[in-house]
Amino acid sequence: MKYNFSRKTQQIQPFLVMDILKKAKSLERDGKEIIHLELGEPDFKTPKVIIESAKDALSNGETHYTNSLGISELRLSISEYYNQTYNLKISPNRVVVTSGTSPAMLILFQLMLEEDDEVIISDPHYACYPSFISSTGAKTILVPYKNFSTEITDFITDKTKVILINSPSNPTGTRFSNEELKKLSKLKPTIVSDEIYHGISTGIRDYSALEFSDNSIIINGFSKLFAMTGWRLGYMIVPEHYVRRLEILQQNFFISPNPFVQRAGITALQKAIPQAKLMNDIYTDRRKLALEGLESIGLPINPHPDGAFYAFFDISNLEKNSMKLASEILTSTGVALAPGKDFGPKGEGHLRLSYCNSNENIEKGINLIGKFLKEKYL
Amino acid sequence: MKYNFSRKTQQIQPFLVMDILKKAKSLERDGKEIIHLELGEPDFKTPKVIIESAKDALSNGETHYTNSLGISELRLSISEYYNQTYNLKISPNRVVVTSGTSPAMLILFQLMLEEDDEVIISDPHYACYPSFISSTGAKTILVPYKNFSTEITDFITDKTKVILINSPSNPTGTRFSNEELKKLSKLKPTIVSDEIYHGISTGIRDYSALEFSDNSIIINGFSKLFAMTGWRLGYMIVPEHYVRRLEILQQNFFISPNPFVQRAGITALQKAIPQAKLMNDIYTDRRKLALEGLESIGLPINPHPDGAFYAFFDISNLEKNSMKLASEILTSTGVALAPGKDFGPKGEGHLRLSYCNSNENIEKGINLIGKFLKEKYL
Repeated sequence: MKYNFSRKTQQIQPFLVMDILKKAKSLERDGKEIIHLELGEPDFKTPKVIIESAKDALSNGETHYTNSLGISELRLSISEYYNQTYNLKISPNRVVVTSGTSPAMLILFQLMLEEDDEVIISDPHYACYPSFISSTGAKTILVPYKNFSTEITDFITDKTKVILINSPSNPTGTRFSNEELKKLSKLKPTIVSDEIYHGISTGIRDYSALEFSDNSIIINGFSKLFAMTGWRLGYMIVPEHYVRRLEILQQNFFISPNPFVQRAGITALQKAIPQAKLMNDIYTDRRKLALEGLESIGLPINPHPDGAFYAFFDISNLEKNSMKLASEILTSTGVALAPGKDFGPKGEGHLRLSYCNSNENIEKGINLIGKFLKEKYL
Repeated sequence: MKYNFSRKTQQIQPFLVMDILKKAKSLERDGKEIIHLELGEPDFKTPKVIIESAKDALSNGETHYTNSLGISELRLSISEYYNQTYNLKISPNRVVVTSGTSPAMLILFQLMLEEDDEVIISDPHYACYPSFISSTGAKTILVPYKNFSTEITDFITDKTKVILINSPSNPTGTRFSNEELKKLSKLKPTIVSDEIYHGISTGIRDYSALEFSDNSIIINGFSKLFAMTGWRLGYMIVPEHYVRRLEILQQNFFISPNPFVQRAGITALQKAIPQAKLMNDIYTDRRKLALEGLESIGLPINPHPDGAFYAFFDISNLEKNSMKLASEILTSTGVALAPGKDFGPKGEGHLRLSYCNSNENIEKGINLIGKFLKEKYL
């Protein structure tokens, strides 16, 4: 039976990784031990100081709507965090608090994009970007991630409204250099920079797009840095003249973000940076372990990722169909990985390993993958 | 300077009531006493048992993403609540949990509506409905609220996809009768029934659209019944074949609702119905007080509202411009009311009084309005 759903949503595909997760859970129910390396979510619980502040706000009866732009103290804390981290001078008036980065992207793109406008993203890219773009009637233009900042000029047209970047990147875990960001910020389209993985990185510090152009738009949130995925708290930093229009859209589409979650956000920025740094140290150790492990089983990654919590590796010489291989690895070894196809056409032939798991499980998982590949392909 | 924002969002207007609120807060800062009768939000704190369960879930580290459709136990509780309240047999598999009714409406309409489809709503109506509709490219068709179920047939075309109803209604506080709902449910377009004010009503019980047609779609949430506005927790009940498509949209656009807020929702349905009934008794008292008060100052309402927490009264014989009158009343008396214009063309010439305030303030506020109108117009 064919149902009469809208054309634009029929194009939106389910994530293959969700099918992997479903299969993994079903295997677990059957008693099989599963090592979860498929999901892009910190395994840590939210730091205690953050949890306690949400509980306090609840006890204080902070259960009503807030200002649609967010509690002023949170907007101030976010601007101070950006100013201190990147040596900027952003006014708190430019901060719009949202219920996660997803609703931020929804209203931002509703505001910026007209039917048939074009948005450039890298290939591979975070799986959901094209859905946010297509929900406005605009078009996604894919530019290969490799040499993105050079090749992009071939793809810019009069219709290109936005260049959406993500550094450190999901799924690759790699970053744009200072020079690449400078180059991108000089192009005509507005840079929308998804900085959700900032602070989960090692070596040279992360650069904010706002350091290169004051007209850049920042999308960020608390999910990854503070292990707060379930809380649904994000924000945008936008040029002043966007704020009133975004306030109206937030009023209409979401009313306001959650008050006690916003209190927790203030605490995160004011008191939990040390805990975020500790978690980052752990990710750094795990990253090293994962890269060495993958190299030892014949899956070296070049260039090395140094951010986020992903290792994205090429398996196309063994198997072009990433979903097929991810399913086989799961069934044979109990190790769950994300099929690269989720992240765009150039993600096909790759697998994403998320090292949000213990050192022991990362090592064990990679050894099992190695053994499986050796038996099957060598 | 003209900015290049999308046409569809330029059409979305700010709520005039927000300007009233802003002015009221500024007067408060200047030391003036304000009686707030403008906002559609329970003045009660969320019942303690609900707050405690959220705190427990936080202490237990429930801070990660959940299933995109919501925690199974909450979906089950919602289906049981509907089945018990309306004598239905809804499967929990038909429930989709969302971060409030607003995100529910966003993804539902994204799924159902094609560019140029038509959605019928009443005039007056909840201020945000047209924004959700226009965000999909579809058109809002207004049918006068009075005689809605009869006159609607003149407005139905081949393009009418949805009839969006809201009973008890914001802003009128009145309800469709059993017969009217039956009539509407027999029409060809799908009924989407926003039942957010169900349980805040007196006299005959509320009827769910699902009692009249199993193909109806329900939008509801915890904000009003349980005084949980800030929590952002809502849900839909949809035909089975919608669920998978909505799951994909939720994954893409919102990932999942908040886990500890969902735990609180389970507690609300399982343990806080008595508190909801107590609050309803208080609203019933206040409604009587407000209606008697308005009648005593020459503003009778006919038919009497018996649901939600609004009294919507005609002031067009005194002043056609509702924003002008609301501003004057606020400045002169300190009583804040919502201008009827926010709720559609037929709302103009009316004011909405929300009796989410103490008996004392409701009485005092209405007396002040009466005195002002007498001095100015009589």
